[in-house]
Amino acid sequence: MASAASPNGRRTGRPSGSPPNREAILASARQQFIEHGYDGATIRGIAAGADVDAALVHHYFGTKERLLLTSLQESGPAQQAVEGHLGNLVAAGTDGLGERLIRATFEVYGSLLGPGWGSLVSLLRSAATREDAAGMLREGFARGGLAQLIRALDVPQPQVRMALIGSELVGLAMARFVIRLEPVASADIDSLVAWYAPTLQRYLTEPLPGDEA
Amino acid sequence: MASAASPNGRRTGRPSGSPPNREAILASARQQFIEHGYDGATIRGIAAGADVDAALVHHYFGTKERLLLTSLQESGPAQQAVEGHLGNLVAAGTDGLGERLIRATFEVYGSLLGPGWGSLVSLLRSAATREDAAGMLREGFARGGLAQLIRALDVPQPQVRMALIGSELVGLAMARFVIRLEPVASADIDSLVAWYAPTLQRYLTEPLPGDEA
Repeated sequence: MASAASPNGRRTGRPSGSPPNREAILASARQQFIEHGYDGATIRGIAAGADVDAALVHHYFGTKERLLLTSLQESGPAQQAVEGHLGNLVAAGTDGLGERLIRATFEVYGSLLGPGWGSLVSLLRSAATREDAAGMLREGFARGGLAQLIRALDVPQPQVRMALIGSELVGLAMARFVIRLEPVASADIDSLVAWYAPTLQRYLTEPLPGDEA
Repeated sequence: MASAASPNGRRTGRPSGSPPNREAILASARQQFIEHGYDGATIRGIAAGADVDAALVHHYFGTKERLLLTSLQESGPAQQAVEGHLGNLVAAGTDGLGERLIRATFEVYGSLLGPGWGSLVSLLRSAATREDAAGMLREGFARGGLAQLIRALDVPQPQVRMALIGSELVGLAMARFVIRLEPVASADIDSLVAWYAPTLQRYLTEPLPGDEA
């Protein structure tokens, strides 16, 4: 479908090396993931939204999954929102941090990735059967906003805490959006906060076995 | 591959309605799932192990996933082991129940389903992308040994507790076996118990918001 001629003014598949192209693709990808979800978004649609050729999207990002992870990680509305949320979380101290984390998770993922944690849950679905997607999730946990928050707390065993919180949020996402275990699947946010916040608070700030080792 | 003639004495594809066939298939399925894991087990191999035609396996159980869930649910070594474990859990009271639950989970799934929680994790992988498998997991949680344990405890909001424990165990299984988040992925059982047991204990027996409603 990539045309050598560019009658509509689109750039051809040859990478230009121009950073604006890359940013335009990321902005278009975020928009497409929000509007259509991960499964509904296409490389072709993302390319069209950025006014570039699909081959250029592949050149910069390889796969749709890699594009999703990059769009989640790099500066942009999502990242700014995550950092904004995390700033607020840390600024308000450690009391109630578990509650603020779960609320922030729903706000960030809900508003920026669409209902049902949109593309993040799609990545989780992919991770269940594909090692490359699982690797991306690991990378996302290791480098993402949650890791930054835990480092900012300066608590012992940050890696353990990161994995436990990751496991908690993955379990919540699986129960709510994938397996649809009731009442977790249709509970309101306040109920989820009441159930899960104490667990997250413990993993974030309370003493854990091995802390003193 | 099903032969109309039965030179080796196998029963033909027409269902005989004889319960021993069904039990033989379940016993063979359990064995195959343990030896080869869910992905490695085949309907043909299970049929061969039960000395029946593959069509009979399809007649009784439909799909491999349905066969897996039935083999987990119905009386047999796995079910007896689960019930035995649960009996011990309840008999010893509620103190330390979270720890005993997580140890029992590893013992039952580890010894009867093979390393890596074998076929149960395979069902989880399937549930991530297939609604029928997700439905089987929901059913497994609603009717399985965990639900029996919670009913035996006679605690308020058993359905909420069930879903929270389900979400916790799914998150643990995903982090350990699927996403492989370190250090949860390679920690020894004692460490996992130390990290997760307090969470499970709270979901099992401690007061939860909404208990008094």
